[in-house]
Amino acid sequence: MTTPPAPRRRGRPPRTESADTRDRILGAAREEFSARGYEKTSVRGIAKAAGVDSALVHHYFGTKEQIFAAAIEVAFAPALNAPEALADGPVEGVGERLTRFVFGVWDNPTTRAPLLAILRSAVTNETAAAVFRRLVAAQLLRRVAAQLDLPDAELRAELAAAQIVGTALMRYVIKLEPLASAELEQIIARVAPVVQAHLTQP
Amino acid sequence: MTTPPAPRRRGRPPRTESADTRDRILGAAREEFSARGYEKTSVRGIAKAAGVDSALVHHYFGTKEQIFAAAIEVAFAPALNAPEALADGPVEGVGERLTRFVFGVWDNPTTRAPLLAILRSAVTNETAAAVFRRLVAAQLLRRVAAQLDLPDAELRAELAAAQIVGTALMRYVIKLEPLASAELEQIIARVAPVVQAHLTQP
Repeated sequence: MTTPPAPRRRGRPPRTESADTRDRILGAAREEFSARGYEKTSVRGIAKAAGVDSALVHHYFGTKEQIFAAAIEVAFAPALNAPEALADGPVEGVGERLTRFVFGVWDNPTTRAPLLAILRSAVTNETAAAVFRRLVAAQLLRRVAAQLDLPDAELRAELAAAQIVGTALMRYVIKLEPLASAELEQIIARVAPVVQAHLTQP
Repeated sequence: MTTPPAPRRRGRPPRTESADTRDRILGAAREEFSARGYEKTSVRGIAKAAGVDSALVHHYFGTKEQIFAAAIEVAFAPALNAPEALADGPVEGVGERLTRFVFGVWDNPTTRAPLLAILRSAVTNETAAAVFRRLVAAQLLRRVAAQLDLPDAELRAELAAAQIVGTALMRYVIKLEPLASAELEQIIARVAPVVQAHLTQP
């Protein structure tokens, strides 16, 4: 899995070596948060996994919470395209486009891993939940809501997200059968109308 | 918060003192699993919180996994009445009855705490997920499904559960706004038709 290059720090000259180091630290952070959850992950453990000194991790990212936020932002990069995917077609197809887009991310083990890490951390730790809330609410759901011309658009976007996240939780984390083994198309066919109704039904 | 009496062990004479001890251990187990999650909870920690010896915890319940299963069963006791609540009225009202029933359990801090403990543990630990799967799938969703006269009833019950659990997750765990502060009746009004559609729509 390749990690998209992280934004360069302001005032620093562009150097491939430092961008590589940042990426390696972010990749290690994502794996540590994924495997251990937020609480059990330490800056020292991330540094060790990335093969660098803890001081360098602090230098690039700051505190554990800030590393977590940076790792989430990178992990969420594919999902953050959802609002654009939504805009790209007629409003009657918005439920299917969003459902297909999000399950496309969840159904691929490579893009699923960081989402799982975020979900696990957010469910078990309040600091991680706050980061999740800020990023997901501000960057994803509010942008989805902004495309709906309805007074309670944010609540609608959250209830649509609840159906999608709940289904992903049951299918990929709890692995309830028959949901876990069902064909993706069967799930999309059942979830998309619900998402559509949440988002646009009067 | 009172704990309903646990079933007595086979072959043991009914003794109030041992039932009290069992209840105290189960209550301590639920609080430990809730506060720490499955992995970080130890039989020794449960014993200490209950004011008994670890050997007594093992004597009554067996392994940590078995204590977890017992704690889940007690915590799930209110939710296990859902299939009966479903049966108690016309099929057109099944979505609202189930939604109202489950959110009644989630919206009460006393009955919410053990559900949160289960959810947190199941999301972060495979052993806990397996216990959750067995109990919830077998004792709750299959009984809901059995009341629907449809070939894919189990998948339907799981997708309805996904909307409810996802909404509970966003509202009570992640605390996304405006969902977290919305009136319960507003949420029921939006979720019930979705649950109804999942369960009964052709």
